[in-house]
Amino acid sequence: MLTKSKIKLVRSLEMKKHRREHGLFVAEGPKVVGDLMRVYKPVEVFATSEWASLNGSALSGLPEGMVTEVSERDLARMSFLQHPQGVLALFPIPTPEPPSFGPPSGLVLALDGVQDPGNLGTIIRTADWFGVKKVVCSRDTADVYNPKVVQATMGSIASVEVAYADLEEYLSRVSCEVCGTFLEGESIYDAALDRNIIIVLGNEGKGISEGVARHVSRRLTIPRCGTSLTAESLNVSVAAAIVCSEYGSHRGAVSSQPKANCKRN
Amino acid sequence: MLTKSKIKLVRSLEMKKHRREHGLFVAEGPKVVGDLMRVYKPVEVFATSEWASLNGSALSGLPEGMVTEVSERDLARMSFLQHPQGVLALFPIPTPEPPSFGPPSGLVLALDGVQDPGNLGTIIRTADWFGVKKVVCSRDTADVYNPKVVQATMGSIASVEVAYADLEEYLSRVSCEVCGTFLEGESIYDAALDRNIIIVLGNEGKGISEGVARHVSRRLTIPRCGTSLTAESLNVSVAAAIVCSEYGSHRGAVSSQPKANCKRN
Repeated sequence: MLTKSKIKLVRSLEMKKHRREHGLFVAEGPKVVGDLMRVYKPVEVFATSEWASLNGSALSGLPEGMVTEVSERDLARMSFLQHPQGVLALFPIPTPEPPSFGPPSGLVLALDGVQDPGNLGTIIRTADWFGVKKVVCSRDTADVYNPKVVQATMGSIASVEVAYADLEEYLSRVSCEVCGTFLEGESIYDAALDRNIIIVLGNEGKGISEGVARHVSRRLTIPRCGTSLTAESLNVSVAAAIVCSEYGSHRGAVSSQPKANCKRN
Repeated sequence: MLTKSKIKLVRSLEMKKHRREHGLFVAEGPKVVGDLMRVYKPVEVFATSEWASLNGSALSGLPEGMVTEVSERDLARMSFLQHPQGVLALFPIPTPEPPSFGPPSGLVLALDGVQDPGNLGTIIRTADWFGVKKVVCSRDTADVYNPKVVQATMGSIASVEVAYADLEEYLSRVSCEVCGTFLEGESIYDAALDRNIIIVLGNEGKGISEGVARHVSRRLTIPRCGTSLTAESLNVSVAAAIVCSEYGSHRGAVSSQPKANCKRN
């Protein structure tokens, strides 16, 4: 049975301190809950009778008592979505492993103070699409277990390793080339990025911080086209998407050749 | 002086029916308000004394009585931002011109039911960065004058023409190639897109609708790399960014050559 205190617990997980206290995070909707269940065992699942009757098989492997049927109204009271999607689950926050300082395999994205949960989630979702396996975040980047981030990843949080670190220390110790995106630098379209590298993306308003920039040995830029007076920058999740899209693209190769990083997989 | 009814008016502009009723939309923060002031004459500007004393010159061209000094607290009561930025302005919604059916100049983006205001705003901002001058939206796409859209454009609403139309009719009458992004199709990396074309992007969940798809003569896709089980799609604003980034890129050309669409401008 759904108790008031359970609803209160779920709602409290909007805040990082409560997520830490309980060691839990929220995921919603069949896609995200299903993807996470491939990797993590949920602690509790709430589903409307209607959703459960149509999608019972998705929950059939779970022990009895783990799934609570709830009314649409109660789901709406728990949900962080404008349009709740029939199912909401609580997952344990995994114990993070410290990011390794060895050379990365392929492209690693490093985020320096990305604040917006939607941006962080979208970056993880995009990384997953392009086969990027790892995202290293500065400690002041948004929390990956924020419900808005989890939702914006669309389940990719289950495939992409997201680590938090002192970014300056991480970049000073890691043994590979460190690139960063800036408003001025080498055009990303000419950069032929295809080795094991880290590419740093900065905060929405301030870009890459001075301290982190000191560890960047190669400044990349996404050239602006045209003469618009209003176009001053790109959204960071858009910049990350173009970085992922360009990585391994080998401009100058035969045009019918697929992207090198797609071929590898 | 700021009245309660004025605060109520500003807050009411969150809803489309009130924006239509009053013919007004809200913009916030020095970047967005400043960019819009290049193109539109504001109806009313609200600024905190602190902001006005530091940025008075930005408002110096405005007639007396148009600027109201407000307290931080009152600005927060009016603002749609989590962190109000010192200035908020009301602008008249311009009378839209019907989208022309002639051949577009360069790339035109067509949006088929994009729902999320952040996505629409980000697409307009990205279009501006890449020199795309026009975005045509289906009538069920989010309203460009929604405060969240205006904010996400970061001022680019002043540079990019955004028109609403019956998308099926528009595409059936326009005299150029119509491409669309789908989960399957020709790789965008091989497509060499550089003529006058329209590229359609679909709804966040459902993609391009059947009716609109009938008018698409060339199906493009952004190839997925890797074998992740969770990566099923890209966010539409990310897809739009890669479309804009690839347009005119001429893969297969000499790698030191800048993007063709950048050269043109």
